[in-house]
Amino acid sequence: MQSLQAMASEWSGVDSADAFSIDDTNLFQKLGLQTFINLSTNFYTRVYDDEEEWFRSIFANSKKEDAIQNQYEFFVQRMGGPPLYSQRRGHPALIARHRPFPVTRQAAERWLHHMQQALDSTPDIDADSKVKMMNFFKHTAFFLVAGDELKKNQTQPAPCKHGSSNHQTS
Amino acid sequence: MQSLQAMASEWSGVDSADAFSIDDTNLFQKLGLQTFINLSTNFYTRVYDDEEEWFRSIFANSKKEDAIQNQYEFFVQRMGGPPLYSQRRGHPALIARHRPFPVTRQAAERWLHHMQQALDSTPDIDADSKVKMMNFFKHTAFFLVAGDELKKNQTQPAPCKHGSSNHQTS
Repeated sequence: MQSLQAMASEWSGVDSADAFSIDDTNLFQKLGLQTFINLSTNFYTRVYDDEEEWFRSIFANSKKEDAIQNQYEFFVQRMGGPPLYSQRRGHPALIARHRPFPVTRQAAERWLHHMQQALDSTPDIDADSKVKMMNFFKHTAFFLVAGDELKKNQTQPAPCKHGSSNHQTS
Repeated sequence: MQSLQAMASEWSGVDSADAFSIDDTNLFQKLGLQTFINLSTNFYTRVYDDEEEWFRSIFANSKKEDAIQNQYEFFVQRMGGPPLYSQRRGHPALIARHRPFPVTRQAAERWLHHMQQALDSTPDIDADSKVKMMNFFKHTAFFLVAGDELKKNQTQPAPCKHGSSNHQTS
């Protein structure tokens, strides 16, 4: 089987070197905490107001403030800042924590659409950081699609004991 | 439902502040790359030679060298060093990547037994770092047990269409 990393690269069109170029500079030091809070607030304001009901409904069971905090704490931790996310919630465990949600390719594309708009309309994110972050987000979104497909493969129901091969004997 | 973090703390007896005290100092800078390589080599030498066949067999489909590299690259990345693991394999996604394995409480205890011995017999790991790392390992091991139990809950087969409620009509 192809690795999660290889699937993420193929589907996103972003190779792993570009996806993890977020590690070339310390983006947390460069941008600062408030910029990450602003980005996630901007992003989730778009998501919770999305005209596409199918996408908006994915988030219906989470409070917007919680979604914002979970996201910016993870971004801060992953992009060179203090481990805010793990101190509060433990390991990111990205695939497992997305298990309750239908992370389809269509959902990944919609997530990325809103994130591109949020990046473009959040002040204080320079062009180079924006490219690095968007590559990371694209790769990660499709990494989670790959993770979601693993889940489907594992939740196939077992063959039914009362299936068609039995009905002639009943 | 209790959070993964809360279950990990309860089962391991390590609260999250102690588990993530690995972030109080940069353990990679303190210990250096070679110490992490030595620790993982020491650990997996014990695991692959384990007299307990049930535990040893969990690793039977992985090459020892690969197991060592995956582990020390993750430790280095998580404990303040360069993101070696993600550059090669993507997000750690700890729970998802352990999905093929039976991460039971018994397996967690056995893993921790070998890790304690490996820590105690790897030169250049000072007592304070050892305590911090062992707390992190205990908490993480039971975080993965919690993740494994989620998996079980999700792989219950769907109710059978040809189940007992139907047999009277056939």
